Amino acid sequence: MSENRILDAVSSPADLKLLDNEELSILAQEIREEIITVTSQTGGHVASSLGAVEIILAVHSMLECPRDKFVFDVGHQAYAHKLVTGRLEEFDTLRSYGGLSGFPKPGESPYDVHPSGHASDSLSVALGLAQARDLAGEDRKVVTLIGDAALSGGMAFEALNNIGQAQTPMVIILNDNEMSISRNVGALMKHLGYMRASTQYRRTRDSLQEVLESSGPFTSALASFGRNMKESLKQFIIPRSMMFEQLGILCTAPIDGHDIGLLKETLAAVLETDGPVLVHAVTRKGAGYEPAVRNPEKFHGIAPFDIATGEVKKKPAAAPTYTSVFGRALVAEARRDERIVAITAAMKGGTGLDAFAEEFPERFVDAGIAEEHAVGLASGLALGGRKPVVAIYSTFLQRAIDQMIINNALPNLDVVFAIDRAGVVGEDGPTHHGMFDLAFTRMVPNMRVLAPSNEAELAHALHTALALGGPFAIRYPRGAAEGVPVPDEPCVLEEGKARVVREGKDAAILAFGRMVAPALGAAELLAERGVEARVVDMRWVKPLDANEIARAAETGLVVTVEGGVISGGAGEGVLGEMARLGCVAPALTLGIPDRYIPQGAPKALLHDLGLDAEGIAAAIMKKRAE
Amino acid sequence: MSENRILDAVSSPADLKLLDNEELSILAQEIREEIITVTSQTGGHVASSLGAVEIILAVHSMLECPRDKFVFDVGHQAYAHKLVTGRLEEFDTLRSYGGLSGFPKPGESPYDVHPSGHASDSLSVALGLAQARDLAGEDRKVVTLIGDAALSGGMAFEALNNIGQAQTPMVIILNDNEMSISRNVGALMKHLGYMRASTQYRRTRDSLQEVLESSGPFTSALASFGRNMKESLKQFIIPRSMMFEQLGILCTAPIDGHDIGLLKETLAAVLETDGPVLVHAVTRKGAGYEPAVRNPEKFHGIAPFDIATGEVKKKPAAAPTYTSVFGRALVAEARRDERIVAITAAMKGGTGLDAFAEEFPERFVDAGIAEEHAVGLASGLALGGRKPVVAIYSTFLQRAIDQMIINNALPNLDVVFAIDRAGVVGEDGPTHHGMFDLAFTRMVPNMRVLAPSNEAELAHALHTALALGGPFAIRYPRGAAEGVPVPDEPCVLEEGKARVVREGKDAAILAFGRMVAPALGAAELLAERGVEARVVDMRWVKPLDANEIARAAETGLVVTVEGGVISGGAGEGVLGEMARLGCVAPALTLGIPDRYIPQGAPKALLHDLGLDAEGIAAAIMKKRAE
Repeated sequence: MSENRILDAVSSPADLKLLDNEELSILAQEIREEIITVTSQTGGHVASSLGAVEIILAVHSMLECPRDKFVFDVGHQAYAHKLVTGRLEEFDTLRSYGGLSGFPKPGESPYDVHPSGHASDSLSVALGLAQARDLAGEDRKVVTLIGDAALSGGMAFEALNNIGQAQTPMVIILNDNEMSISRNVGALMKHLGYMRASTQYRRTRDSLQEVLESSGPFTSALASFGRNMKESLKQFIIPRSMMFEQLGILCTAPIDGHDIGLLKETLAAVLETDGPVLVHAVTRKGAGYEPAVRNPEKFHGIAPFDIATGEVKKKPAAAPTYTSVFGRALVAEARRDERIVAITAAMKGGTGLDAFAEEFPERFVDAGIAEEHAVGLASGLALGGRKPVVAIYSTFLQRAIDQMIINNALPNLDVVFAIDRAGVVGEDGPTHHGMFDLAFTRMVPNMRVLAPSNEAELAHALHTALALGGPFAIRYPRGAAEGVPVPDEPCVLEEGKARVVREGKDAAILAFGRMVAPALGAAELLAERGVEARVVDMRWVKPLDANEIARAAETGLVVTVEGGVISGGAGEGVLGEMARLGCVAPALTLGIPDRYIPQGAPKALLHDLGLDAEGIAAAIMKKRAE
Repeated sequence: MSENRILDAVSSPADLKLLDNEELSILAQEIREEIITVTSQTGGHVASSLGAVEIILAVHSMLECPRDKFVFDVGHQAYAHKLVTGRLEEFDTLRSYGGLSGFPKPGESPYDVHPSGHASDSLSVALGLAQARDLAGEDRKVVTLIGDAALSGGMAFEALNNIGQAQTPMVIILNDNEMSISRNVGALMKHLGYMRASTQYRRTRDSLQEVLESSGPFTSALASFGRNMKESLKQFIIPRSMMFEQLGILCTAPIDGHDIGLLKETLAAVLETDGPVLVHAVTRKGAGYEPAVRNPEKFHGIAPFDIATGEVKKKPAAAPTYTSVFGRALVAEARRDERIVAITAAMKGGTGLDAFAEEFPERFVDAGIAEEHAVGLASGLALGGRKPVVAIYSTFLQRAIDQMIINNALPNLDVVFAIDRAGVVGEDGPTHHGMFDLAFTRMVPNMRVLAPSNEAELAHALHTALALGGPFAIRYPRGAAEGVPVPDEPCVLEEGKARVVREGKDAAILAFGRMVAPALGAAELLAERGVEARVVDMRWVKPLDANEIARAAETGLVVTVEGGVISGGAGEGVLGEMARLGCVAPALTLGIPDRYIPQGAPKALLHDLGLDAEGIAAAIMKKRAE
């Protein structure tokens, strides 16, 4: 790192306006070095952040943020934005507890517009901001940056459709980096690819530059055209009409998204138009860091890594992850039953489906960032006699709750929802914690819900769901499992039957999923204080084990522990069952309280939430003292 | 009605193959008469059903259902399908308790593929069926019928994107009837409108007919072209490329959707292609019934009407509906606060926003059938300083739960979710009951939830939400309100404070929303048996009134009554609060049990569910006897 960095002199976007294009290019390189240096320690979203540096610098050079609004779609490309909006000094706290968020976060900076953690939402937010501006009679600019992958989400299309109709000024920058989180998916990608590959791309780009350069006061001339400007701009646009144009959104030819000068000139022109414009910027994920360019998928979200080699710094081998155990168990099931198909929504690697896709390519579907369609597609496959397993992160399955309810559970189809990243997930923070799935699955009729407490139980749970049929939800957490052996021949779990893992007469802890381990730890701590607590691995969130609940009530204190929200969660389900059974006993429902949970190491977060052994034991002692 | 109807001789789609085009046209008129005759008694979705008659007859003439699959999107256009698949005799039971569903329903007939009640899902289902077919090595046809309005839903776009990539044979019939449920919305509509208006429409249509007629064995010739067929077909396609083609889906020129011969010939050709094809059929909503053509919005979903005039048979004036009270109350609020904006997802009339849209056109947004975008847009408007009120039916808000959680509640924005049609809705059945909103709103941090018990309380609730700020959900049922006067000057309800509406010492009924009235009725019945029950209008589902809950526990029996699912609902919330307060008492949670609820009159359904005065009283007597 140089000692006289431009970066150190940039305290706000206003400073960027003092830099010429060459200096901005140097700054871009400094930002890349900073991102690589810091994320090699913290981990993070490296590839997309490196790809968007020039776009971000160009936008902040042209706007007056925070008066103007710069909206990010899935903000993991926003690191450069953080670095030029006064957060350089804290940048090494990225994604840590109390540190900078890995995404734009309104509470963190006035330059961050909305909590952009779920894909495809930026266009709706930007249109809302533009319409709010119009209603207030203000003239602020609204610019949004969206990746090509996020365009496959239906919400983005809904917004484009509305934007094309509303015709209020806003600029959409399409960061077309030729890959979504895993591989390209969908016909739209092919269309974008075609645009990029066309010889017209270069030619139009060159002529656009030429015109921009030769026309001198081009921008002001353009502005004076007023309503005719669209026509002028159309001359720079590839003649072949594009999807966006048919939706009523003016679209530039693809331009080099790493050419700051060209980006600024293009923005200067389109920011003056009187309707929506899409700037098609072509970038490379990982640009400027060879290991990330070579393997952008690996560097999408990566753990701390060695800068020289790009290799992840391996921690001493813990247990395999729940994700990988799920992936292997599903492959084993699929070998036994050819009806099994697997569906992911752009998270093949993240959900552990690589091996499945490799071995059964024709039985594997990547639906794109399109959870609604993925779950609807599952219903069609099930209606056609297949047995779909849909693997989606808990937080993203929030996008497809209606399709679970109407398309799958109502007709009582054979479909398994493999809900990965359930509970607190750690560094990605509040937009990514899987807090709600217990509540939103158990409310659905016909749905059975399993929460395996370790990797062997996960294999049994998957086998059970496939064997029994009907709609099933299986939820399991991120990260290393408990380290128990995984059976080659998983068994069918008896429906609604819990598993007592420790006996005790003074209280009963009914624990769900990963919370069984800290519940056992709590029981040991309680035993040291003379309190003998029974610990039950409930296994089934739905149907609940009524016998074990009745037995629990007989101890005089029923404690439920779950890794999800208390409101509407499994614990309240236990209380409901107690009421139906006529069991009257004091109860304690432990879980995630009614607030959003910050980012941080899962272990630390669980400690803060009182969901580790100490916290559970302390809560029980306190309750007994009441 | 004629005595020798062709319709009476049609017992299955196979019979249609014996009819020539002229006979099919006569049959189409008979079907229209039958639909008008029956729906004038039962009410129903008249306009779209009349518009799709010829398309349905043409499809069933060309397919071998149920082996082939005919998938409907929002099945309220499917009445003709019901009439030619063996359900003529039961047709007058349409939408009644125990009778035919108003939508395709798998349990009702092998010809009904999926429960199609929520828009935009058919393409996902159809692709799943097509891929299931491919995996099984079968050769069945898959045809889906989708209206233009349903295309604005993001799920449909997600599916189109995947279909364009998958390139497996399937036929999508776009029923382009120039209007969604209310008016046309969105840029896509404009694009479709352009296509329709072009002079090429007629010209291409005529030449297509000419070619089809002159070429004799055209279909078989086409089939023999094999892989080159697409090119042949392209000759019939309007030269200007369309959005669908850019997504990789072959698209016909717009054809007359009421010309059975043309429809059959087009289908014959496209059913043999080796990839996805979209048939663009232009129809008129209400075709064949003048009152419905004149006013298709009124005849979208209509109550029983007079056939001669098309006028709805008015029942004796009951109280105004909750919907209309909401609409008026919002207009009054909007006059006082110019920051208020209203958003609907294609349900302007249904959500009572007509008057608002009339008085404040610039502050009103119809986002189309696009709940995800509608709720995301609300967050952008709130970020821009506006106060959005999003009015969506409970069942359709299931589409936008993630946007509630991430885009609105996480940044704690000032936004009101006006949740109409909460609870059992009646004749539209299981896809339309608003069963889940109490569970899925109360699980969300920062969200406050109000369930007004009458129309005056609704006005107070709306005023309270707008006055206090932050994310609010207000849920209220379909149909006539309770008949109490609505205050001109609504007040701010004290947060988390319930309202005791009857005193009693033997039990306490904590009732939510519309359930307060039957709870009061139950208390009267109980009083006759010597049981004095306190009745509390809880008002707030979140935060709950802890004091009233503690007082309730002191009576020795806590009864909760709500018009939503018990699993995760308000009653379980009360149990959770009791546990936290250390209140130990027998409890009874009444609400919708863990199953889907059939169609029928709301009053009858509530009786079956034990949620009327008699049922509540009986449940309490039984519980006391335990």
